[in-house]
Amino acid sequence: VKTDHIPKATIQRMAIYVQILENLLNSGQKVISSDKLAVECEVNPSQIRKDLAYFGEFGVRGVGYYVKDLLERVQHFLGIDRTWNCALVGVGNLGRALLRHRQLRARGFVIVGAFDCDPFKIGEVVAGHEIICTRRLKERAKGLQVEIGLITTPTDRAQRAANHLIEAGIKGIVNFAPKRIHVPSDVWLDYVDFSNHLIGLAFNLTRRQTTKA
Amino acid sequence: VKTDHIPKATIQRMAIYVQILENLLNSGQKVISSDKLAVECEVNPSQIRKDLAYFGEFGVRGVGYYVKDLLERVQHFLGIDRTWNCALVGVGNLGRALLRHRQLRARGFVIVGAFDCDPFKIGEVVAGHEIICTRRLKERAKGLQVEIGLITTPTDRAQRAANHLIEAGIKGIVNFAPKRIHVPSDVWLDYVDFSNHLIGLAFNLTRRQTTKA
Repeated sequence: VKTDHIPKATIQRMAIYVQILENLLNSGQKVISSDKLAVECEVNPSQIRKDLAYFGEFGVRGVGYYVKDLLERVQHFLGIDRTWNCALVGVGNLGRALLRHRQLRARGFVIVGAFDCDPFKIGEVVAGHEIICTRRLKERAKGLQVEIGLITTPTDRAQRAANHLIEAGIKGIVNFAPKRIHVPSDVWLDYVDFSNHLIGLAFNLTRRQTTKA
Repeated sequence: VKTDHIPKATIQRMAIYVQILENLLNSGQKVISSDKLAVECEVNPSQIRKDLAYFGEFGVRGVGYYVKDLLERVQHFLGIDRTWNCALVGVGNLGRALLRHRQLRARGFVIVGAFDCDPFKIGEVVAGHEIICTRRLKERAKGLQVEIGLITTPTDRAQRAANHLIEAGIKGIVNFAPKRIHVPSDVWLDYVDFSNHLIGLAFNLTRRQTTKA
């Protein structure tokens, strides 16, 4: 498998293929043609064939792809044929929602530690997790084998949360706080910002109304 | 302002410019050069100049951009110089987190109605919202002047939630449930899927470990 310079958009499509293939597998479908898979994934057929070419030639001529086989290849390619231990920093509303989020766990992203700096929250148990003081993140991260950090703090504490994660040697961070943060070049950072999706929607709705008028 | 065929990536960068410009404005900065703005936004200077060219030539030579003026132009371009009324369907953990999310409201996305089909939840008050039966969405949407729907149901109820929103005449939907849904071509649909961001992270962390080994 060649993994050099793979565009982010390709990875995002692969993540969608996983979702669709899981649904197909769960509904008992064993084989699917690339055209039908393209329809299910809302991607054009030439695009899906190009994406799947990353795994070499393995579709069966006249049949398509074996769902289970393809799913396993995509999962392996993406690095999600294993579990990833996550530490969550910031046990507010969103943090609590993530701690109770079944889908993340089902995909192998297991939150193994919940951290917060609020003394009134420390010791509280949320979804089976006893909230730990963020200052203890560094000493606890290794024992918990944390590889990914999730930041769900208020915006003004996001950088401090990132610093704690970085000091603990964590190399992958997803920041849910709507605030740009700075990390060293060896730390992979991604943002989940709801507002940005809503802004995209607002833009398109506005444009449509303007076009109509 | 030309608004034809603007790539999604451009809109997402524009959303980041808004975030950064707001921070600059709040910190009292009045003027910024495009180079400095590029650094703040973690975008290369030629890219940012290209993006801002959508608004015509209005930077001041040798000075840069007036922060407030630029912010207002970007907000107007994106259609976020106004409020957008949203209906939320699915008052679980994530729904509750969104109902209490200050940032969404600060950006003009105001949740005006919270809907759920669970009879034990109907009538409960969450963050000032009395939960309404989802079957009443259509009759309530017009009075509430809802333009955007947010789906935060379990995956198996996402399509039904979408159907209720569509029947209510809502033309913009953000689906937070990790499930592909189908909408008519005149409805703008976007997904917020945390797993996809984590999958992207897992991919990059795996690739890095493989490269090192």
